[in-house]
Amino acid sequence: MKKNIVPIIGMILGVGLIVWSITSSGDISSFVDAPSLVITLGGSFSAILISFPLKSIKTLPSILKTIVLDPNPDYAKLIESFIALSRKARSEGILAIEADIEDQDNELMISGLQMVVDGLEPEVIRDIMEITTENIEKRHSIGQDIFLKWGEMAPAYGMIGTLIGLVIMLGELNDPSTIGVGMATALITTFYGSFLANLVFLPIASNLKMQTTEEMKFCEMIVEGVLSLQAGENPRVIEQKLKSYLPFESKEEVIKSAMKAADKLQKEEENYG
Amino acid sequence: MKKNIVPIIGMILGVGLIVWSITSSGDISSFVDAPSLVITLGGSFSAILISFPLKSIKTLPSILKTIVLDPNPDYAKLIESFIALSRKARSEGILAIEADIEDQDNELMISGLQMVVDGLEPEVIRDIMEITTENIEKRHSIGQDIFLKWGEMAPAYGMIGTLIGLVIMLGELNDPSTIGVGMATALITTFYGSFLANLVFLPIASNLKMQTTEEMKFCEMIVEGVLSLQAGENPRVIEQKLKSYLPFESKEEVIKSAMKAADKLQKEEENYG
Amino acid sequence: MKKNIVPIIGMILGVGLIVWSITSSGDISSFVDAPSLVITLGGSFSAILISFPLKSIKTLPSILKTIVLDPNPDYAKLIESFIALSRKARSEGILAIEADIEDQDNELMISGLQMVVDGLEPEVIRDIMEITTENIEKRHSIGQDIFLKWGEMAPAYGMIGTLIGLVIMLGELNDPSTIGVGMATALITTFYGSFLANLVFLPIASNLKMQTTEEMKFCEMIVEGVLSLQAGENPRVIEQKLKSYLPFESKEEVIKSAMKAADKLQKEEENYG
Amino acid sequence: MKKNIVPIIGMILGVGLIVWSITSSGDISSFVDAPSLVITLGGSFSAILISFPLKSIKTLPSILKTIVLDPNPDYAKLIESFIALSRKARSEGILAIEADIEDQDNELMISGLQMVVDGLEPEVIRDIMEITTENIEKRHSIGQDIFLKWGEMAPAYGMIGTLIGLVIMLGELNDPSTIGVGMATALITTFYGSFLANLVFLPIASNLKMQTTEEMKFCEMIVEGVLSLQAGENPRVIEQKLKSYLPFESKEEVIKSAMKAADKLQKEEENYG
Amino acid sequence: MKKNIVPIIGMILGVGLIVWSITSSGDISSFVDAPSLVITLGGSFSAILISFPLKSIKTLPSILKTIVLDPNPDYAKLIESFIALSRKARSEGILAIEADIEDQDNELMISGLQMVVDGLEPEVIRDIMEITTENIEKRHSIGQDIFLKWGEMAPAYGMIGTLIGLVIMLGELNDPSTIGVGMATALITTFYGSFLANLVFLPIASNLKMQTTEEMKFCEMIVEGVLSLQAGENPRVIEQKLKSYLPFESKEEVIKSAMKAADKLQKEEENYG
Repeated sequence: MKKNIVPIIGMILGVGLIVWSITSSGDISSFVDAPSLVITLGGSFSAILISFPLKSIKTLPSILKTIVLDPNPDYAKLIESFIALSRKARSEGILAIEADIEDQDNELMISGLQMVVDGLEPEVIRDIMEITTENIEKRHSIGQDIFLKWGEMAPAYGMIGTLIGLVIMLGELNDPSTIGVGMATALITTFYGSFLANLVFLPIASNLKMQTTEEMKFCEMIVEGVLSLQAGENPRVIEQKLKSYLPFESKEEVIKSAMKAADKLQKEEENYG
Repeated sequence: MKKNIVPIIGMILGVGLIVWSITSSGDISSFVDAPSLVITLGGSFSAILISFPLKSIKTLPSILKTIVLDPNPDYAKLIESFIALSRKARSEGILAIEADIEDQDNELMISGLQMVVDGLEPEVIRDIMEITTENIEKRHSIGQDIFLKWGEMAPAYGMIGTLIGLVIMLGELNDPSTIGVGMATALITTFYGSFLANLVFLPIASNLKMQTTEEMKFCEMIVEGVLSLQAGENPRVIEQKLKSYLPFESKEEVIKSAMKAADKLQKEEENYG
Repeated sequence: MKKNIVPIIGMILGVGLIVWSITSSGDISSFVDAPSLVITLGGSFSAILISFPLKSIKTLPSILKTIVLDPNPDYAKLIESFIALSRKARSEGILAIEADIEDQDNELMISGLQMVVDGLEPEVIRDIMEITTENIEKRHSIGQDIFLKWGEMAPAYGMIGTLIGLVIMLGELNDPSTIGVGMATALITTFYGSFLANLVFLPIASNLKMQTTEEMKFCEMIVEGVLSLQAGENPRVIEQKLKSYLPFESKEEVIKSAMKAADKLQKEEENYG
Repeated sequence: MKKNIVPIIGMILGVGLIVWSITSSGDISSFVDAPSLVITLGGSFSAILISFPLKSIKTLPSILKTIVLDPNPDYAKLIESFIALSRKARSEGILAIEADIEDQDNELMISGLQMVVDGLEPEVIRDIMEITTENIEKRHSIGQDIFLKWGEMAPAYGMIGTLIGLVIMLGELNDPSTIGVGMATALITTFYGSFLANLVFLPIASNLKMQTTEEMKFCEMIVEGVLSLQAGENPRVIEQKLKSYLPFESKEEVIKSAMKAADKLQKEEENYG
Repeated sequence: MKKNIVPIIGMILGVGLIVWSITSSGDISSFVDAPSLVITLGGSFSAILISFPLKSIKTLPSILKTIVLDPNPDYAKLIESFIALSRKARSEGILAIEADIEDQDNELMISGLQMVVDGLEPEVIRDIMEITTENIEKRHSIGQDIFLKWGEMAPAYGMIGTLIGLVIMLGELNDPSTIGVGMATALITTFYGSFLANLVFLPIASNLKMQTTEEMKFCEMIVEGVLSLQAGENPRVIEQKLKSYLPFESKEEVIKSAMKAADKLQKEEENYG
């Protein structure tokens, strides 16, 4: 799959700006404080451990990997596949598509086509595919929920850290000259909490949400396509249905390339068929 | 398309008021601080880069252009078109409207009428047009989401900037006379974050939302009109259906001008027909 | 229409309490500051100008008028009308109600009855009336949205004003004795923003929301009544359907007066008929 | 109806804890300040007067009474009633239940059974009962909305009061020794606002919401029961349907007591019948 | 049932980090203050007593127990059960499954299968099972609501405690050297409120929400399975329907083990049958 390094660039840019902002008027060393990071990051992670099942938390590393993958599914290829499949099904019968199932790389598409070939009722296929889609969405949304919660907890633990620092500082207020340093240290955890929430956790949650939206659209197109295929609808109608998911501007090119590819595919098959 | 300069006036007015408020009691130069702007605007933009796919962020300039366009679709003209089209379809047959498709300038209308002429089933047309409408809405809402997120991130980065300033100032608290200036500088980023969010990002997000609402209404009217047209409904009924989307007060005039224009159009056609 | 001065009393009471609270322990003159009002009210209005289409903002004065009108639609009269109309329709035929349409003063009722007399299909009438109701609600909700947004923007601009005041004051911290006055002035905009939001904008938004809810209930009753009328349902059933929208306690009296009035009306008609 | 004094205990406990907390380290007299209470409570009530129609505000005293009533409807008795009614209806005909309508004390149940006896169509009965239920819910939710709004407004007016106090204190900063007392007084309104919102208004809003949820469940059971009764369903099926609203653990006993009571009732009727 | 100690680990980790953070730079004794805990915990509990019915609050201890239970229902066993049951029903008739009902340990499953054996109509069974599921969800959500409300109230009472401390301290501002200690004490309640909300109440509310989601999925699968069983659907189709609730990756193994177990079960039954 293609890489998407934009989120990485965003994160580097954000960290860079903050480091530049600090170094341009002060000393970076006063912002590096391991205990502050431990209380902010560790404390909020404790809350995550209580909030979510371990099996969901364990998926975080693999979820993080999806952020650097290109979130744009290949719509042209999907439409092309359905046009080719529906032409084949109309000319050679629905069972003929069984040979093409293996070439697909989307799990939902594979299971949907398999059910069509197995001759299940359209209502059953729709039910199963919609439940599958819904459950894919639910599972994805747990990833978002975790990062959203983390982005909510990080500033809370930042504030708890600052409160601890303030109470200690205020309790030892013998030497007024230490107030400044004490408060500066106390504020570091608030800084960490805000920084982690707004540069890491919340943007990642948004990113995952956008990716889920895109993937759900892709799943809907597959469900629509599989059911139209089974109903034996005209390839032209299937194409129109699927292209209604795409923006007008991009339609032209997507469709053109899809039709061309499908024509080519059919020609090849006829040659070798 | 007509221009709508009200949002521009609003923005100039807002900036003007703030500048006036500053200059009337202080010096504007103490509010101009490039590093503060960089951390607030650049930092929040970093978060946007992580949160949204690049292809959506790239559409921002074209989205901004729509803000200065008149957001009011021409309802009278739409109703007029449908009355004329339905009269023609009833007198000359549904295929006769093919010639008029090219005159339309709304993509959804064109594709809907084309499907009617192509003789697709009403359910298929409804499905396709509703999916199209839904996907137009989803795409538009990404623009709103980006500005909403930016309006949420700008104050957060403003606060991060202020925290950085405070920590540096408090750590160097040797000379109490510098506290004031230090805190003033620290607060500038909070000011920038609040200013950007409440005068730029959040109002733009609202503006886009209102425009989407208006456009969705227009799309719904087109779907309703196309399906009624295909069903061969009476032009008077189509008119009543479409005018139910309009407020009572404006109905009278819209309808009058629509009927007049439709009559005129028909007359012309009869003359030249 | 009857007047409803309760909101006016609320506003006078609120302003009175705040003025009393100020004068009882300080000097009102230190709370009157034109520039502070300009930045708070003008700045938030700038944001409104960007956020909403001008045609919606222009309706604000007429929306404000509805706040002093009695928000209670005359349910008894509505039920009475439908009982009388359905009796007439059952005895003299549905076309006989045409003469009574002009006596109605609700636009939705008039257009609904007209469609019944015109002999449109029940599904078409339901569609048109529901679209109309939905669009009345959407238009009303824009008024609420504007005041809600304004109630959100006013404190934001109050804070922006306070930040400006603080930055200026802190930058000129040569004479510590001026700190107090400087901060007092800076806080005035926060006070204005909070005051405007919580005594004017947010309560007005709530008020409009309650009125829309009430009006929507009235519209639903009209739709239900018109469709039952067309279906030729028993006046007793129509009455039961409509009274199910009312609370149990008020039902008795509303129904009694409605039945009495309807009887009287019928008697009169019989006398003069 | 049974009393529920738990909310009263909660309120006394809350007030007691706060008073104890104050007296244990300070003087209660410095927290009693009539003007502060007037601005917080009166100001927020002004906002309520603008926000809601007077007729809704007038219902507040009667709504407050429901808080001390036992919120648990008698589910066992309801199921028992329906079992007895359905047995009677199956043995003696549906009209036989007319005599039992008067024994019911729930308005919805009475009107539903009356419609069954009157022989209205099932769809009409369902429509009417569902509209009634929906409108009961809407009316109840206004009570919640008022207390929710009040719980939002009280801290806002508390802050307005504090701002007034701060501005006055800061404007008269001649004698630094008065700062403490001035700020203490200014903070009292914030304390009142927070206290009123979190011990009175918001908990009452939650309480009303829970009661509405419980009552809506009861209404749903009645609608389900009345329609099953009319459809002449088996008493055993009616019982199963209604018990599906209850938790598994409590089912056993509720059902047992309901069946026993119904059996006893039938036996008595047979004896005297 | 299996234990799930992860939430306990999370809580210990969170408390440990905070204690470590305090002791590493100050004295833990200044953070132990019984009155502060009483006002924060007791005050917020008073609000809970007003907000929720006593019977719901009484379930809290048993709800807390579910947090240490493994939240993962045994999906493989459920699918296995349905495959075995549907095979038996197809070969020996639907009544044959009555003997297997007792082996089930899920209440919903037991009541659903019993209704199938009792020969109730599919619509009635669906109705009853869906109402049951919905009411299970409603009851569970009350537990979440209580902890969510508590997590909202704890910081509010923390702030009330801090306000009390501040007002007392500011009123006695004779000796400036006590300001620090006074403020430190006042801030302890804010610390407690934030700590309780973010380490105890809010994470527990999230945990309960995740468990409810998981259980609802399990209930949906049971409803789907029972209805498919009654409809006499092919075991293979039932399996496909139920596996559509599971993620693709885990499907393979779950299905394999389910098929194997079902085969084994059948074989055993054939041997002893």
